[in-house]
Amino acid sequence: MTRLTLRPGHDRRLRSGHPWIFSNEIASLDPHPANGAAVEIYTAKGECLGSAYYNGHSLIAARRMSRQRESIDSLDFFRTRFSTAAMYRRSLYGPETNAVRLVFGESDGLPGLVVDRYAEVLAVQLLTLGMEHRKEIILAALLQEFTPRAVVWRNDAGVRELEGLTRHVEMAWGEPPGEVGVGENGLSFLVDVCGGQKTGHFLDQKENHRALDGRVEGHRVLDLFCYSGSWSIHAARYGAKEVIGVDISAAAITLAERNAHRNELHQRCRFVKADVFDLLRELERKRERFGTIILDPPAFVKSKKKLPEAIKGYLTINRRAMELLEPGGFLFTCSCSYHMDRETFLDTLRQAAAQAGRECRLVEMRGQAFDHPVLLACPETDYLKCAVLQVL
Amino acid sequence: MTRLTLRPGHDRRLRSGHPWIFSNEIASLDPHPANGAAVEIYTAKGECLGSAYYNGHSLIAARRMSRQRESIDSLDFFRTRFSTAAMYRRSLYGPETNAVRLVFGESDGLPGLVVDRYAEVLAVQLLTLGMEHRKEIILAALLQEFTPRAVVWRNDAGVRELEGLTRHVEMAWGEPPGEVGVGENGLSFLVDVCGGQKTGHFLDQKENHRALDGRVEGHRVLDLFCYSGSWSIHAARYGAKEVIGVDISAAAITLAERNAHRNELHQRCRFVKADVFDLLRELERKRERFGTIILDPPAFVKSKKKLPEAIKGYLTINRRAMELLEPGGFLFTCSCSYHMDRETFLDTLRQAAAQAGRECRLVEMRGQAFDHPVLLACPETDYLKCAVLQVL
Repeated sequence: MTRLTLRPGHDRRLRSGHPWIFSNEIASLDPHPANGAAVEIYTAKGECLGSAYYNGHSLIAARRMSRQRESIDSLDFFRTRFSTAAMYRRSLYGPETNAVRLVFGESDGLPGLVVDRYAEVLAVQLLTLGMEHRKEIILAALLQEFTPRAVVWRNDAGVRELEGLTRHVEMAWGEPPGEVGVGENGLSFLVDVCGGQKTGHFLDQKENHRALDGRVEGHRVLDLFCYSGSWSIHAARYGAKEVIGVDISAAAITLAERNAHRNELHQRCRFVKADVFDLLRELERKRERFGTIILDPPAFVKSKKKLPEAIKGYLTINRRAMELLEPGGFLFTCSCSYHMDRETFLDTLRQAAAQAGRECRLVEMRGQAFDHPVLLACPETDYLKCAVLQVL
Repeated sequence: MTRLTLRPGHDRRLRSGHPWIFSNEIASLDPHPANGAAVEIYTAKGECLGSAYYNGHSLIAARRMSRQRESIDSLDFFRTRFSTAAMYRRSLYGPETNAVRLVFGESDGLPGLVVDRYAEVLAVQLLTLGMEHRKEIILAALLQEFTPRAVVWRNDAGVRELEGLTRHVEMAWGEPPGEVGVGENGLSFLVDVCGGQKTGHFLDQKENHRALDGRVEGHRVLDLFCYSGSWSIHAARYGAKEVIGVDISAAAITLAERNAHRNELHQRCRFVKADVFDLLRELERKRERFGTIILDPPAFVKSKKKLPEAIKGYLTINRRAMELLEPGGFLFTCSCSYHMDRETFLDTLRQAAAQAGRECRLVEMRGQAFDHPVLLACPETDYLKCAVLQVL
């Protein structure tokens, strides 16, 4: 087994519970491991800090899988991790929930691995070389632990490139599942597991959708970046009189329309294929007004370097949304970029309010769904912000 | 009317919606106003930014009451503000709630004024000289708007000294109310409106108490800084098998015991008069363990200067609490100091976890109750943090 020795003084992050080791923190590797291979972590003084996998291609050269010295290549290791993670979700949502993030990477002691359950189908993201190298054992453990009818590798995420991996979607097990029906807050949604965005559905907004309850009754609602219609359909269910969902993707609009029908809420939901920035300008020109606006854009910030540019984007859409709201109306505004931290996001909203000349109440500051747990020691696992504002 | 003119370039905060003017931002006052008097705010270029009251004794030399040029000394002004604020609370909790913060200072366009309703009694904090000078008109407006049977001036808050005011409690209207019974989440509490901490009850934790539901069943619970027992009694109601509440105040302990009786949960609640720091050491020595621990200390940080010292206090109690938790146990840990911002608080919790050698999940990051709304433009109104951690 390779012995990874840290440079003196570089053991603090790991000791605090954060699982990453950066390439410049490594004093020696003995013998030099293959990329993806397991290593044991030692401090400069020879104390063992656990077991990790290595990738010389990545800035994050190693990710700790265990604080113990143990094999991270056994079926048992993965089965135990999966069963612990699943137990936590059962404690949150009960056993009957059929749309749930079963494994959320670092937060479940499995850095670089995401597993979403949609009914009897598992959508899996192998986000690092270390996990890619363990795909056989991961599949075996998933089959034994969850007996799914199909497993999809959703290996098309951009972050794979930082690990020197290609991007593609393929079946790991069973037949291509097509669209899968799942439940959320008593509603029903179709999920395109192989072709949809991310793994097909945004499970991280589950509890935030419910926060519409009591805040949209009788409202005209505008849902921007609506994707397959989750926010829109929740708004209609909670009493909105008219909902307009907007997305640039024709496939998303079609799926959203079918989802509205599926829940018999299509008479109050209308979906429009459009560029959100263009549409906002047009709505302002027409002096249209709304009681609630939802802004749940895709990640504008893919890297720290791009932050200033992204802030401009958030500023524009939030300012325009505030301008379109009736007095007393609600703005549900989200950012799913880790690099856009909570304070920067709030500052951007403050600027937007100042530019729009509107006074705002911060009614609630919400985060990601409970099945995307945040590991306290690893701030990178805390990525989703959902601010509920009331524009006065 | 005095014309307050800002120094060039010092209009940004006010334009963004923040209501404070610091003494070093004022170019001129013409004519010089009496402390407490109304002033009109002008930019260096002569644009009017609204109406404020002035206090030359305070670093915050003026607080804006309105973005319009209007009288802030009329009964109508206060009645309109009160009625708007009350309507917002009714929209949140319905008309039957009898324990609610009706006015939360800056967030309700009434800087320096807090009004809490406990059944038919109002507890009022006049926190600034500007509000102190308007007490007659405030009382008249409260009586007309809410027809209470008693109004108490809870003018014993420390911040009054920054305004050059004395500290005392006195009846503004009606007979001293004694203890008042109020409802919260289906439970019932006695509030000592004249003699209790702050205005007698911590209304800002209302929704956080409910977050115990589903997380304490069958647990042994330790509630530190328990005051009159709200957290403890909620924990017992949500299924804790044994609750120990701890406070340094004998009066608080007596009230907590009576509150437990009132809800017929006294057989599962025990209250102990003790210093929390001492008791934590003793519990560790005895190797006692708990399923849930609640840490809701008084504000350790009264000023920015005292922050480093306060962090040490938070670090100690959180580390010890983590050490006393069973694996999988929950820590509800709070800070009500504005100067301890969310990131500093989370960093302190991270340090505590590292020192305790415990891995923690950040299950939820909660804030203050909805009847303590945050004014987006005024971060000072966002003060309460309640982190729900699961210690693995």
